[in-house]
Amino acid sequence: MTRPDWIAVDWGTTNARAWAMAGAEVLDTAPGGPGMGGLASDGFEPALLRMIDGWDIAPGTPVIACGMAGAAQGWRDAGYRKVPATPLSDTLVPVPTNDARLAVHIVPGLKQTNPADVMRGEETQIAGFLALNPDFDGAICLPGSHSKWVQISAGEVVSFRTMMTGELFAALAHHSVLRHSVAPEGWDDDTFADALSQSLSRPEQLAARLFSIRAEALLNNRGTAESTAALSGLLIGAELAAAKPYWLGLPVALIGAAGLTQHYATALAMQGVQVIRTRGDTLTLQGLTAAWRGLSKEPS
Amino acid sequence: MTRPDWIAVDWGTTNARAWAMAGAEVLDTAPGGPGMGGLASDGFEPALLRMIDGWDIAPGTPVIACGMAGAAQGWRDAGYRKVPATPLSDTLVPVPTNDARLAVHIVPGLKQTNPADVMRGEETQIAGFLALNPDFDGAICLPGSHSKWVQISAGEVVSFRTMMTGELFAALAHHSVLRHSVAPEGWDDDTFADALSQSLSRPEQLAARLFSIRAEALLNNRGTAESTAALSGLLIGAELAAAKPYWLGLPVALIGAAGLTQHYATALAMQGVQVIRTRGDTLTLQGLTAAWRGLSKEPS
Repeated sequence: MTRPDWIAVDWGTTNARAWAMAGAEVLDTAPGGPGMGGLASDGFEPALLRMIDGWDIAPGTPVIACGMAGAAQGWRDAGYRKVPATPLSDTLVPVPTNDARLAVHIVPGLKQTNPADVMRGEETQIAGFLALNPDFDGAICLPGSHSKWVQISAGEVVSFRTMMTGELFAALAHHSVLRHSVAPEGWDDDTFADALSQSLSRPEQLAARLFSIRAEALLNNRGTAESTAALSGLLIGAELAAAKPYWLGLPVALIGAAGLTQHYATALAMQGVQVIRTRGDTLTLQGLTAAWRGLSKEPS
Repeated sequence: MTRPDWIAVDWGTTNARAWAMAGAEVLDTAPGGPGMGGLASDGFEPALLRMIDGWDIAPGTPVIACGMAGAAQGWRDAGYRKVPATPLSDTLVPVPTNDARLAVHIVPGLKQTNPADVMRGEETQIAGFLALNPDFDGAICLPGSHSKWVQISAGEVVSFRTMMTGELFAALAHHSVLRHSVAPEGWDDDTFADALSQSLSRPEQLAARLFSIRAEALLNNRGTAESTAALSGLLIGAELAAAKPYWLGLPVALIGAAGLTQHYATALAMQGVQVIRTRGDTLTLQGLTAAWRGLSKEPS
């Protein structure tokens, strides 16, 4: 029976994942559990116990959780640490439990006062990336529903910005007139490159160019593959326009799923930016491991 | 029993309206009918007959329809006339009917080749505005789900652009993380003005500023009235940034519902633009009357 030294938990909005750990080694991966969206604050401990039911848990086993477990509507509000800051501090937020086998600690998020911004979960991926690349100086981009652009210097998050690119794409593709033109499958590289260049060079025209996707379909029978690539190009172009201070003249590390980071890598390469691509799922576990190491240090 | 000289019909996506007319005078308003979205092409004639059931219709009575009746998925595809063009031509598109009492004609839309754009229905409102203001030179703005900006010179539509501002607002307010921050009621003038100025002066920052609405709510407890005004200000600012060639240094006529045109009037006044506000519903009928007058002219 698996007997973990500690347990790593990534608690998202729609699902949760847990790993039985021995140091940095994964002993076992638990079955997936419910996300924050489906749980009240007193539902997290029972949900976790169901996920790790097959393991032999010694009393006081450390559980390190990141993500929405620490949201105001989560297990316990772990707050936000203010940037500039290292992505992790040694001070995690302890959570009282009914089951004495679990010593739960949650990783706080990061916040920025001006312009106002927040992250929760990404700080752990960033910590994982910096554990592997401690001397990295540049920008980290984590594309997604809420893309994050993060300026890293001397191991600290100096500043960051969130762009709702993924949510904008989904909202327009499903809940606007563009739903008639955009499809889940299909792509056209040239249309993507054109739309990206337009959006980056004339970002003030975004509002008008979005409707042109519909007009091109009506007037010129442009197909769904081109329309989908055009919408993606316009929105990623708008994101890159807003994030220009982050990537201009700096190396960029892209963290995320392969399909999505490919489009960003193409877009950034067109601007002459040097890009490193990394998968996000392994970085979360590396970041949780770094958090566990910080916790298990003796106070000096 | 009402006996119209002709019948005016405004056929939208979600509903239809019809009026019994004698020249420019409204004799009666029919009960509302189903929009294009709920009808197959052979359903339009029966739907119209149900709406005007209470009237005494002479054989060959002209019926002038604008809007989605002329869409590809409408009663009959009335096509688009290419700009530059007057908003209406004398050539309407005749539609064969089973009922010999109806002589149906549909107003075509307008199209622009580069950048690709289309309108259908707004051309009739524009014609109504120009019937009242034949010497107007400047821009017409019709705010809405798909806001239209139209350059008018010498009685012609020279060029136009569509911005999906209303649809973007609805999609973000209902289908993004901003749904937690934005509410149907509540408004704050100062927040609107700030967001508008930001969006107009730094349009490339739109993608980042949208998420700040969420972050301000989380970090600074900003309320739904301010968040709603901020979202509106950012999106109307983005629209004005894209439409700048239309309004810079020119008078602007705003056509639409009072609540919506008020925000645009405020925004444009902040830029020093002279604005005329007009209600859209009466203009549609004036435009249909102009179309009927063109139809009833003898060929010279």
